[in-house]
Amino acid sequence: MKREELIANIARKGSFLCVGLDPDIKKIPPHLLDKENPLLEFCKAIVDATAPYCVAYKPNLAFFESQGVQGWIAIEETVKYIREKYPDQFIIADAKRGDIGNTSTMYARAAFDHLGVDAITVAPYMGSDSVKPFLGYEGKWVVLLALTSNPGSKDFQFSTDASGERLFEKVIKTSQEWASEEEMMYVVGATQGSMFQDIRRVAPKSFLLVPGVGAQGGSLEEVCRYGMLPNGECGLLVNSSRAIIYASSGTDFADAAGAAAAQLASEMKALIC
Amino acid sequence: MKREELIANIARKGSFLCVGLDPDIKKIPPHLLDKENPLLEFCKAIVDATAPYCVAYKPNLAFFESQGVQGWIAIEETVKYIREKYPDQFIIADAKRGDIGNTSTMYARAAFDHLGVDAITVAPYMGSDSVKPFLGYEGKWVVLLALTSNPGSKDFQFSTDASGERLFEKVIKTSQEWASEEEMMYVVGATQGSMFQDIRRVAPKSFLLVPGVGAQGGSLEEVCRYGMLPNGECGLLVNSSRAIIYASSGTDFADAAGAAAAQLASEMKALIC
Repeated sequence: MKREELIANIARKGSFLCVGLDPDIKKIPPHLLDKENPLLEFCKAIVDATAPYCVAYKPNLAFFESQGVQGWIAIEETVKYIREKYPDQFIIADAKRGDIGNTSTMYARAAFDHLGVDAITVAPYMGSDSVKPFLGYEGKWVVLLALTSNPGSKDFQFSTDASGERLFEKVIKTSQEWASEEEMMYVVGATQGSMFQDIRRVAPKSFLLVPGVGAQGGSLEEVCRYGMLPNGECGLLVNSSRAIIYASSGTDFADAAGAAAAQLASEMKALIC
Repeated sequence: MKREELIANIARKGSFLCVGLDPDIKKIPPHLLDKENPLLEFCKAIVDATAPYCVAYKPNLAFFESQGVQGWIAIEETVKYIREKYPDQFIIADAKRGDIGNTSTMYARAAFDHLGVDAITVAPYMGSDSVKPFLGYEGKWVVLLALTSNPGSKDFQFSTDASGERLFEKVIKTSQEWASEEEMMYVVGATQGSMFQDIRRVAPKSFLLVPGVGAQGGSLEEVCRYGMLPNGECGLLVNSSRAIIYASSGTDFADAAGAAAAQLASEMKALIC
């Protein structure tokens, strides 16, 4: 999906919500455990209930991998299901991959050729040749980790060099030499709302994938105040996982997820500029 | 596997060779493509031919993932095969994982509970709570990325703070507060042999997993001179992938892999102190 299509989808729906698919076998409603592939049934129901309110899905590969082959079948089928039934949804494989060139080439193949997602999250630690193999796929995206929403982000991402530049800023600046805002986004955690000012100084046009709203405590209003692009470009995909998909653990889990997504989407509609 | 067992295996075999399993469907011998699961057949043959000469295997998950469900079956069966037939081999899932706490917990479950490997490579960018969920499994290990062997390692790993400390040194120092040398190793690339002196200053007792010997141009002799621990502790696992597993692309590929592994092991024997 091209940047302009994503922007058009956001404008049409009045939402920049990304629903995170983190299907934990220990948390999904018990009545699904009798099904042939519980993770897949869970994801399909969540997708059907939330699709009107979001523009993107972010399946988290860890949750699928933890179920081995069965989980791998579930992720492939989930992506195929979204792709066929809701072709205007942007699909991000949350995978945090990154390795030497020939290995990243394999991860890119897994994500783009095999799974067929639109984007994959990539970790920057190994530098340019670990990221570049994910680039150059028509309509596909790298979502590079910059400033994450977890407590451990303070361990290394704020390391400051002699010029005062912090590592997450260096990652954003350096990586913009590898790709434009047409094929690279950044992960920026919402738990640090005012940090979006600093991010926009170094990434003035890039889309930002923002986790940490909801379960992790970030404020949607702050994210929009400091991070949103003007003129309808938006430039944000705000992700919510647990607050939506585990809104209920009963047989009404899909309805509850739909209601939680609708609520967040209506808050977003009021904030789009 | 405990540290003392690994050291004993190295001493007994006179080898600290780790064979990297990077089965590329486009590179494995063509006669295997008729088999039900070509990647699995390739890995089993490589393992049978090389097991006498190495103490560890490092399956690279990217190469398996690029084949989807079939690849996931191949990695599970490969690990099971090594585990049953060669129980003294140390198995490292080369995965470069790392995410927020609840997601890293899932990756740890995938590696240790489901696949059943001894160790997993982890990327440090997201800090403490992205690494700690992999710790505390009895006899299991984190192999944390520190200084990698690829050109892109220069982009961020050498970022220097005001005190002159480089990022890879900070990663090693900081992470030693999370775990001892009984359950954490570091990835240190061999293409920069003399750097091992600097590494040993901050990681005096840790095992180092060393890629980059062979195809990537590192020198085994330099790695040992600067990186080996005395008194038979060794403290090194030197990995070779392509130079062994693709030594021949004909029907003699397994024999050729065995010969390449034997050659490297004999060089190692002369260097163990």
